[in-house]
Amino acid sequence: MNQKIRIGINGYGNLGRGVESALKQNKDMELVAIFSRRDPESVETLDPSTKVLHISEAEKYKDEIDVMILCGGSATDLPEQGPRFAKLFNTIDSFDTHAKIPEYFSAVDEGAKSGNKTSIISVGWDPGMFSMNRLLGEAVLPEGETYTFWGKGLSQGHSDAIRRVEGVKAGVQYTIPIEEAVNRVRRGENPELSTREKHLRECFVVTEDGADKEKIEHEIKTMPNYFADYDTTVNFISEEELNKNHSKMLHGGFVIRSGITGENTNQIVEYSLKLDSNPEFTSSILVTYARAAYKMNQDGQTGAKTVFDVPLGHLSPKSPEQLRKELL
Amino acid sequence: MNQKIRIGINGYGNLGRGVESALKQNKDMELVAIFSRRDPESVETLDPSTKVLHISEAEKYKDEIDVMILCGGSATDLPEQGPRFAKLFNTIDSFDTHAKIPEYFSAVDEGAKSGNKTSIISVGWDPGMFSMNRLLGEAVLPEGETYTFWGKGLSQGHSDAIRRVEGVKAGVQYTIPIEEAVNRVRRGENPELSTREKHLRECFVVTEDGADKEKIEHEIKTMPNYFADYDTTVNFISEEELNKNHSKMLHGGFVIRSGITGENTNQIVEYSLKLDSNPEFTSSILVTYARAAYKMNQDGQTGAKTVFDVPLGHLSPKSPEQLRKELL
Repeated sequence: MNQKIRIGINGYGNLGRGVESALKQNKDMELVAIFSRRDPESVETLDPSTKVLHISEAEKYKDEIDVMILCGGSATDLPEQGPRFAKLFNTIDSFDTHAKIPEYFSAVDEGAKSGNKTSIISVGWDPGMFSMNRLLGEAVLPEGETYTFWGKGLSQGHSDAIRRVEGVKAGVQYTIPIEEAVNRVRRGENPELSTREKHLRECFVVTEDGADKEKIEHEIKTMPNYFADYDTTVNFISEEELNKNHSKMLHGGFVIRSGITGENTNQIVEYSLKLDSNPEFTSSILVTYARAAYKMNQDGQTGAKTVFDVPLGHLSPKSPEQLRKELL
Repeated sequence: MNQKIRIGINGYGNLGRGVESALKQNKDMELVAIFSRRDPESVETLDPSTKVLHISEAEKYKDEIDVMILCGGSATDLPEQGPRFAKLFNTIDSFDTHAKIPEYFSAVDEGAKSGNKTSIISVGWDPGMFSMNRLLGEAVLPEGETYTFWGKGLSQGHSDAIRRVEGVKAGVQYTIPIEEAVNRVRRGENPELSTREKHLRECFVVTEDGADKEKIEHEIKTMPNYFADYDTTVNFISEEELNKNHSKMLHGGFVIRSGITGENTNQIVEYSLKLDSNPEFTSSILVTYARAAYKMNQDGQTGAKTVFDVPLGHLSPKSPEQLRKELL
């Protein structure tokens, strides 16, 4: 057997933990170490034998690690870490601030090229698998519409927004696609849908003792960007109920391309996900693309890449011959 | 604007007609000519201004055509034409005899390499889009099962088989996925399903005058490979009804990957197609991959390729910058 692909994990939250777990399912890879900003002694890994090091040690592992999977957040971690690590390692990240992707791509590209490394950015399911399906949909059916629906799923950003409201102790928010809209799209009607017509937002909120629930509900429902453009429901529940029924990070969604070929012939393509764990699925994708980054770097394809640049065969541990025989 | 990609079509049946139609939806391509084994004068094209030439003239268009889309059948046309045309043109084909793909790949690879051309074989939805989703599914979720269901759709091969039965004047066959099986897969049960448990076969048959219907029904239902392993229903109908209700070449199906990550967390990925016209959809895919073959050849990536070798960005007329900005 060939030597295994040596992986490092930078950042150990839900995503980093998911990567540690996913690596155990991929026999052609091995985890060298997790790097964290925290005191390494305080980091509790899924597998107690996993090595944890302080992030300041990462550079020393330049020749010990083939691909570093960056599991930090898009707001502050990746804009700084992405370009810096790209000089030292092949990297994978899940940068998902859509508007800043072009700028982030340039910064990582410069870093990766200077170090002769390959960095695949914005990997995951959206951006990621959903982006690939948006591209495929419009390439194959140029006359048509693409629809992306998210959910039913727990949105981390919206849950955080709820928790910032005064008097809120804890809470979660579910994004729910509106069935009637989805059905119209699936029937090939190609409707124009407003934001409000596509998704509902459902909140489950635990309040501090004596909080003004009416005020909280009003404040959530009118919050700009997050809730004001949607039909939002707010349910007040106990802390016990929240912990019991709302602790799973389930998510999902679908990308539908509805197009016309020839003489008004409807063609509908749908890609859908039903995930019990959003971070674990994203992590599994990151690990798969680590394999591709390694292969592309061996082929001399350096610089920043996205899921659009990766031949799918590079994602599999199987040889091209085996793929043609077994999966084509 | 850049020069358009110059396309040739070889073979003008349903698939060739679909390619002619799909090219009109892609502004970065132009159709140079259709090549046919028939007398060119006898070929009625969708657009009367389309140039039709005898296949023996093809070689003369070596420098006039960037990509030749081969629209012949897998049984006898492509095994001969694929390797031969690959020496002269970048080519796309929809070779779909699964068992013979490795052998066909080698023959085309040799031709393409000798002519410094790029040939993408086995393009379409299965093999093709479904293959890509089978690969993605098992790469991202290594612990799980992949299920491919076809239909509801008209199967050309099975319809042909019916029509070979003595006393049958005309007929069509629909492949129908069994809903209970699909639902079990979608629920994440990862069932083991026999051939009979996955699909039904429904036949609509027009008989010759005085034919023995009981005998025909028996002969269809017990036909090895085609029907014997399935629950098959045979409906006898009039020729009028056949023409009225069964002339659309609708098809579809789905690829479902049902996997586990972490602590028994179910993750379900589904790719599904609902097609009013099977050949037109396949043709649209062929045209999209013609763009990729052209780009890969310009990059110096010669030889035979499959959908597993093509970076998705090559399928779009948009630039990498535009794709990152608009679709990621």
